[in-house]
Amino acid sequence: MPKAGFHPPFAPRYPPFVGSGIMSPMEPRRLAILGVGLLGGSLGLACKSAATGIRICGYAHNPQTRRLAMDRGVVDEMYADPAQAVHRADWVVLCTPVGLFESLLRQIAPHLAPGTIVTDVGSTKASVVAAAAGLPQGVHFVGSHPMAGSEKRGVEFARPDLYRNALCIVTPTASTDPEALAAVERFWQRLEMRTTRLSPQAHDHLIAQVSHVPHVAAAALVAVASEPALPLAGKGFLDTTRIAAGDSALWRDILLDNAPNVCDTLVQLREQLQELETHLARGDSEAVRHWLERAAQKRSAMVS
Amino acid sequence: MPKAGFHPPFAPRYPPFVGSGIMSPMEPRRLAILGVGLLGGSLGLACKSAATGIRICGYAHNPQTRRLAMDRGVVDEMYADPAQAVHRADWVVLCTPVGLFESLLRQIAPHLAPGTIVTDVGSTKASVVAAAAGLPQGVHFVGSHPMAGSEKRGVEFARPDLYRNALCIVTPTASTDPEALAAVERFWQRLEMRTTRLSPQAHDHLIAQVSHVPHVAAAALVAVASEPALPLAGKGFLDTTRIAAGDSALWRDILLDNAPNVCDTLVQLREQLQELETHLARGDSEAVRHWLERAAQKRSAMVS
Repeated sequence: MPKAGFHPPFAPRYPPFVGSGIMSPMEPRRLAILGVGLLGGSLGLACKSAATGIRICGYAHNPQTRRLAMDRGVVDEMYADPAQAVHRADWVVLCTPVGLFESLLRQIAPHLAPGTIVTDVGSTKASVVAAAAGLPQGVHFVGSHPMAGSEKRGVEFARPDLYRNALCIVTPTASTDPEALAAVERFWQRLEMRTTRLSPQAHDHLIAQVSHVPHVAAAALVAVASEPALPLAGKGFLDTTRIAAGDSALWRDILLDNAPNVCDTLVQLREQLQELETHLARGDSEAVRHWLERAAQKRSAMVS
Repeated sequence: MPKAGFHPPFAPRYPPFVGSGIMSPMEPRRLAILGVGLLGGSLGLACKSAATGIRICGYAHNPQTRRLAMDRGVVDEMYADPAQAVHRADWVVLCTPVGLFESLLRQIAPHLAPGTIVTDVGSTKASVVAAAAGLPQGVHFVGSHPMAGSEKRGVEFARPDLYRNALCIVTPTASTDPEALAAVERFWQRLEMRTTRLSPQAHDHLIAQVSHVPHVAAAALVAVASEPALPLAGKGFLDTTRIAAGDSALWRDILLDNAPNVCDTLVQLREQLQELETHLARGDSEAVRHWLERAAQKRSAMVS
């Protein structure tokens, strides 16, 4: 429940999140975005673009990011200290690289009032859900993974439509507050996202297959392409490897955090590649065709 | 040289290929496109769109393709027999899957007049260049690989701008006629392509890295993604795996034709993946970061 009288200066200026005119429970009114890069910055812009009336307080470690975020109107207030950014906030969204989540949660925990909702935009879920178990009684954590982003990095690439029409996976556990879960789903839906629920473990297992390992494969393809081959690359190579340009520190965190699932999937990927090598070495035309056709049908059945 | 008096019915109606008003040597006036799918069909449309005045004669095995190609105005004449399609043609472009090139060249060889230029749009070059050595004396073969295409298949997806702004690799050998080579380069440039020269062997080696193996990797990624993971796929996965939807018969031909280079590169790819697995298993953060950063820098330096 929102804390009554908690936001006197903002209540009159900022209408409630839902358009009913009746204050809906657990809707954000003062939202702290911790980490204002591409994802955090786009979240601020999306909230403003949706005319949610939410007051946005940002935290960024880098002074230049803080300046740029204010200049671009991504946030209403900007802080160099996460504890200050979450002061009086009823919602907190962790938007730094996942490797910093545990430390951030430790820093903000003493400053969160009961009833505060904490969520995140991280690409791995089991570790953050485990770390959030240390939050004070009455603070509600709900893990989120909006499947949005790009190979770009930094608030300068933030845009209000980054999340629109994409899928957001929320990862409740047995101890998740049902109202907080519903509020977090409504929040992402308000930003025009579709939502689905998975356990943190299922999330990390499946996302290794469709995000983490594809990133690794794209990077490996770039690595094996020799310098004289690069100028010959066509649209296919550029599309296939675009994600490999992504921020290496961010992806290091993700891959290390989800290492067991990533390694399992990488083993399967290498087995697939070796299977085709065997077919090619044998000149087994039918097996090569079958190997390709299976993937072509599966991929064709997906949206473009 | 164009055969004087060879095209009386067309000469008055179709202006020369170059705009000078002077008939340039070796420019196509009657061009046979053998195989009218995405690439062949787009070639016909591109020639018409460039107002080259070239008479386009098509060959397709499939009656429905022949009908569709005529209906869409991709060709001026359509034949069910390659020998008929190349009759009186001064240029021939092979546009079927590469696995059919050798047989096609055998079929058309007796029907080609001296001075005819033969080129192709195939994704492998060593084998077609070798097969073309059997063409009659005075027929000029120049291998071409326009780096254009898509995961779509069939003349119904043909479009006049498919080749525009893309790179075309031409693959001369010691025995290539210099004038024919220059004419083939001008032809692709007239369709707004950039051209570059490589030996057939260098082409096949380098293109394995930036086209053939990326296709295999994309297909392998689709193969390892489990059914419950597919609906979670975001833009990154869709971009990375788009090429995997490509025609499996076409890609089977390409991979088998270039099997030694493809297998060598696949071994390197698997080594790269295994290297990252080792870093992850050891939790070696610095090595993971370095592995990713090398690829990120290399990819960022390329056009998007």
